[in-house]
Amino acid sequence: MTEQYKIFEAELTGTDRGNPYEDIWLKATFSNDSEALEVNGFYCGGGRYKIRFMPPKPGEWTATTRSNDSSLDQIPLHCACIPAGEENHGRVLLKSQVVPCGREEEGFHFAYEDGVKFLPFGTTCYAWVNQPEEVQEQTLKTLKDSPFNKVRMCIFPKFYTYNTANPERYAFLGNEEEGFDFTRFNPEFWDNLERRIGQLDALGIETDVILFHPYDKWGFSKMGRERDVYYLKYAVDRLCHFKNVWWSMANEFDLMPWKVMEDWETYARVVVRRDVYGHLRSIHNCVQFYDHTRPWITHASIQRVDVYKTAEMVSQWCQAYGKPVVVDECAYEGNINYGWGNITGEEMVRRFWEGCIRGGYLSHGEVYVQHERIWWAHGGRLHGTSPERIGFLKQVMEDVPEGAVPLKLTSENRKDNWDVPCLCREDGSYFLYYFGFFKPLFRTYELPEGHVYEIELIDTWNMTVEKLPGTFSGSVRIQLPERQYMAIRMREV
Amino acid sequence: MTEQYKIFEAELTGTDRGNPYEDIWLKATFSNDSEALEVNGFYCGGGRYKIRFMPPKPGEWTATTRSNDSSLDQIPLHCACIPAGEENHGRVLLKSQVVPCGREEEGFHFAYEDGVKFLPFGTTCYAWVNQPEEVQEQTLKTLKDSPFNKVRMCIFPKFYTYNTANPERYAFLGNEEEGFDFTRFNPEFWDNLERRIGQLDALGIETDVILFHPYDKWGFSKMGRERDVYYLKYAVDRLCHFKNVWWSMANEFDLMPWKVMEDWETYARVVVRRDVYGHLRSIHNCVQFYDHTRPWITHASIQRVDVYKTAEMVSQWCQAYGKPVVVDECAYEGNINYGWGNITGEEMVRRFWEGCIRGGYLSHGEVYVQHERIWWAHGGRLHGTSPERIGFLKQVMEDVPEGAVPLKLTSENRKDNWDVPCLCREDGSYFLYYFGFFKPLFRTYELPEGHVYEIELIDTWNMTVEKLPGTFSGSVRIQLPERQYMAIRMREV
Repeated sequence: MTEQYKIFEAELTGTDRGNPYEDIWLKATFSNDSEALEVNGFYCGGGRYKIRFMPPKPGEWTATTRSNDSSLDQIPLHCACIPAGEENHGRVLLKSQVVPCGREEEGFHFAYEDGVKFLPFGTTCYAWVNQPEEVQEQTLKTLKDSPFNKVRMCIFPKFYTYNTANPERYAFLGNEEEGFDFTRFNPEFWDNLERRIGQLDALGIETDVILFHPYDKWGFSKMGRERDVYYLKYAVDRLCHFKNVWWSMANEFDLMPWKVMEDWETYARVVVRRDVYGHLRSIHNCVQFYDHTRPWITHASIQRVDVYKTAEMVSQWCQAYGKPVVVDECAYEGNINYGWGNITGEEMVRRFWEGCIRGGYLSHGEVYVQHERIWWAHGGRLHGTSPERIGFLKQVMEDVPEGAVPLKLTSENRKDNWDVPCLCREDGSYFLYYFGFFKPLFRTYELPEGHVYEIELIDTWNMTVEKLPGTFSGSVRIQLPERQYMAIRMREV
Repeated sequence: MTEQYKIFEAELTGTDRGNPYEDIWLKATFSNDSEALEVNGFYCGGGRYKIRFMPPKPGEWTATTRSNDSSLDQIPLHCACIPAGEENHGRVLLKSQVVPCGREEEGFHFAYEDGVKFLPFGTTCYAWVNQPEEVQEQTLKTLKDSPFNKVRMCIFPKFYTYNTANPERYAFLGNEEEGFDFTRFNPEFWDNLERRIGQLDALGIETDVILFHPYDKWGFSKMGRERDVYYLKYAVDRLCHFKNVWWSMANEFDLMPWKVMEDWETYARVVVRRDVYGHLRSIHNCVQFYDHTRPWITHASIQRVDVYKTAEMVSQWCQAYGKPVVVDECAYEGNINYGWGNITGEEMVRRFWEGCIRGGYLSHGEVYVQHERIWWAHGGRLHGTSPERIGFLKQVMEDVPEGAVPLKLTSENRKDNWDVPCLCREDGSYFLYYFGFFKPLFRTYELPEGHVYEIELIDTWNMTVEKLPGTFSGSVRIQLPERQYMAIRMREV
């Protein structure tokens, strides 16, 4: 029995002669009474082949294999699917795909396919699956205790400052000394990768799988278009059945100038066609944005390009792209010798709040270089002060009512709102103001007529919520503690 | 005897009939062996008239008055001028006017007319001359003990939140109840204003005289073009002889939409023609920039228009205008209920450093609203934490060698310098890096070949300079204390 949204898998035996990765194709079309989904099987060494399927609905699904290897052809498959368990919400998709509400803001958010909202609060561990086993285990343990529900991670290992060790295994057969065979995959690597993706899923964590990246000494970033496509097909055929997979075509695509735009568009088409489930897709920049209006891009995965103005840009990016905006890199908390990774915990948390109030999402990263392992690339342990506060923000954001949107500045309200972002419901039932680095002693509001509110002061750094006594209406003056990082929440009673 | 750059003044007696402010004109052309300067005298009530002259050179200057009042006409004047004393450097002008060096950066700086460099570190006390006498005295005392060498101040009183009291005297005769006579000036007001400008001069403080502003309930901002010009002529005729006067055509010109562009251009022409000494001229915005490329504008007096990116914009503004950039409002330190005035001392100081390292200048302002007097408008006392640190920065900047310029990013140096601004000499003899809110644990540099340096760590907040032991060349790794607001200074030995 397979649970809805989880993986049905059949192992088959076929030829091990020649190079089955290249030579053999294997397909199956799973159907129930009303739907049919074609999936690609894949070779995993030693004459073993696998067909996987993620049933989108409960019930009986059947298929018959097709292959150019007769021993894999015409094999009947049967997946008996039971309804999803309580914690199993399926894939994360665009909210507009799952629960279209007809309101403008639906275009900027995500939802699980069962309709439950999903607010990404991601972190970054680029090469954690390429670290020693015990580090991988520690990473999972850390993630379990963290607020993060999305991880950006690479398939290929990372070669970059603080990252010079070779991993135990690679996606391809071979090694640095003797070279790699870009036509043969290493099943052990993929088995481990999948085990980790599955473990993340069990923790409720989405896996933002980075398919290419430039930090490379082994040649994985320069295989050429044909081998890139070959690799992409294999990766998608194996991984697309995990409900918690998102595709990031690249980290810092623009640092691989030898891959031109048409390459990226081609690779995107491969992923779109090969992934029958339509998982989320993005491509992440260094200094030059990809055109996030491209139809295959489901959400803008952005690295800030201005040193000073980061999450504040969410408003403009939402407007420019009309898609969810995830600032996957707004700089990292830490003390590395580069400006991309030595902001304070306070500033990291400020950026998170600022971006969330503006209707976007952010990802965390951490680089404290005095430790043997640095979270951003190796995983391991977290040392910073921001994760706990990001968890607090996550609670606040989960509590935001449906339909809340960033306050639109008009000629009338601009005077009172030009300086502080606000998330609100347009019916006047909810306001969440975030003061960031400002520290006013008080603030005055003209509350909408006919509404009565409870007002809370939120100290976003000290993680406290203080309800002000009584209820409020009309003209109010709210005393503030003259500290940075405060928020005011007003809820209609 | 009149000291060079100070004021020669002759008082004359003429008619007091009619309205001498309107009816009588009085001129004199002062000349020595080689130069002639025409000045306008002015009426100061009770049949008294004054002719003033600021001799630009020592020696004998003579003039003969001309007037349409026969009792003021053809009076010989004689100004015996002695050389400037040690502390007297004359007007502040553009460095390019005074000590042209042929280098690109000269366009962005100021110098006294005797060639001594002038680095404006201004503050803002809009309406201090319109406060009670004891507050004015306290303001002068505070300024004396402060690092500030420029004050932005208005002629007209201020009507705005926290500023609702009427002043004792106005520039014009009249009062709020009975109205004002925009054809007759109040000599007592002008005498006091001049006394204050003179006292600022004695403290070495430049006076950025704001000629118009929108915060008004008395009608001074809406007198109409004819009366505006009339007022401007009088103001310039009286004040232009003070060596420490700068003209700010307006504060927040764009909040007076009833004055159109052609008005401002007309008013600028009046000031240019009427001020024979060519004092510095600017016009200050609220949200919409004036075209600072206009030839009459000597320097860009800017209010930041982005809540987040403030002094960082100096680089772009320098490039856009090719003139000195003074961010006269980058927000104020304080706790007022508006985003323009509730940043921390730390952030104020950070903005100062950021802007100075980028080759610009900033002005301070302070609004701690729990005090009876608020520095920004009333003067009085300072309560903030930034002034002392601005004084420290001022020392550091005074110590910067001639010819230092913001490091230009190139394809070669960008990799190591994209994140941190640097002021340097292009011959490699000086580097001043400012880390702002970044807190790296260390930083590495490839020092220019053939140079040996002393290196100092500057803690810009704690105001310490720590010389690292020994000298440095080649590849260096500089340990930093993992605090915000650090700078590194390298000087060739």
